[in-house]
Amino acid sequence: MARYVQHAPIILASRSPRRKALLQQAGLTFSVVFSSDEESADSRLDPAAYVRFLAEKKAEGVAIRYPESWVIGADTIVVNDGKILEKPVSKDAAETMLRTLSGKTHSVFTGYAICNAASKRSVSDAVQTGVTFKPLTDPEIAWYASTPEPYDKAGAYAIQGLGTFLVKRINGSYTCVVGLPVCEVMDFLIKEKIIEMAADTPWTPPTPQSSIN
Amino acid sequence: MARYVQHAPIILASRSPRRKALLQQAGLTFSVVFSSDEESADSRLDPAAYVRFLAEKKAEGVAIRYPESWVIGADTIVVNDGKILEKPVSKDAAETMLRTLSGKTHSVFTGYAICNAASKRSVSDAVQTGVTFKPLTDPEIAWYASTPEPYDKAGAYAIQGLGTFLVKRINGSYTCVVGLPVCEVMDFLIKEKIIEMAADTPWTPPTPQSSIN
Repeated sequence: MARYVQHAPIILASRSPRRKALLQQAGLTFSVVFSSDEESADSRLDPAAYVRFLAEKKAEGVAIRYPESWVIGADTIVVNDGKILEKPVSKDAAETMLRTLSGKTHSVFTGYAICNAASKRSVSDAVQTGVTFKPLTDPEIAWYASTPEPYDKAGAYAIQGLGTFLVKRINGSYTCVVGLPVCEVMDFLIKEKIIEMAADTPWTPPTPQSSIN
Repeated sequence: MARYVQHAPIILASRSPRRKALLQQAGLTFSVVFSSDEESADSRLDPAAYVRFLAEKKAEGVAIRYPESWVIGADTIVVNDGKILEKPVSKDAAETMLRTLSGKTHSVFTGYAICNAASKRSVSDAVQTGVTFKPLTDPEIAWYASTPEPYDKAGAYAIQGLGTFLVKRINGSYTCVVGLPVCEVMDFLIKEKIIEMAADTPWTPPTPQSSIN
């Protein structure tokens, strides 16, 4: 697995196995540390400000305990017709959510924050992606709700699992829908020189020599 | 892993590990059979017709040998400024491709075909997705080209691997970019009753009872 040269420790402040998998797939080396505190935000905030605020709180809560590390926090919500869809609490709730999303386009908002307590440097932002579901039949809804997949996910679906069949198209960042906008996060880590892309690091390249001009 | 009730054998006629992973993640049970013949299409066809033709040829070549099976074929190309980008043949070719894609939006076309020789039933179509790269620096291009990832992929990148950092947004089907439009393929398999979504199959549901109304 190809790796970057990393100049500081990186921590993912999230319990989500999907966010961990995204950063692993991108080749990053990091630890996972999360607080058991449940953060809350003012529900009168607009969706982008809401997820950004929660991402900041999650990152800051871990950053003060690991001041030398760069800590990544994130929060994801699903918004349909102006209404936030949380994680479904029952099979009925999951089926109801899936029925409201069927054949329509909703929005997924993911806020992210990256901060370092020692240097007091940080960034945070929110990314929005439109997700269009195919029209779902009753058996499709009942089947998907009978799998374990909807129950720990805002909006009652996973775009990257069995739920792949639900999603006809998206408009925006795919990794925002999974739970962490990888392009934006990596861009910050590169620009802050927290990670460095050096082609002469000892991975197995397809050609023997490599160079940076 | 949740499964569907399947009423006929399904074959994926592709050597692509990415297509195999997409169908596995969607919960499908299938075999992989591919012909070693290299199919070719008239390069004067438009991109959608081109990939659709090749997908049909790949599926048909396997379907005649397994007439009872439903055979899925697919072909993916990357088109930038009206020019088809193939798999890069060298590090220089990969770097040149990545440089032409940097900071711009290109199109990925995936054709798919599903056919059954015994019933003479079939479907084929093509899906197009716009993919927008972030502006890439020379070190980013040199680093990515020094990994093994670009070399077996049209357009010299993988949206789902280390290359996740390249892609800022997409407009269309994500799985089309990976190599097989899962929503469309599953939709056909469900409508043709090749697979059946029955909520009473013996997986572990989150609540004890389930029903289809």
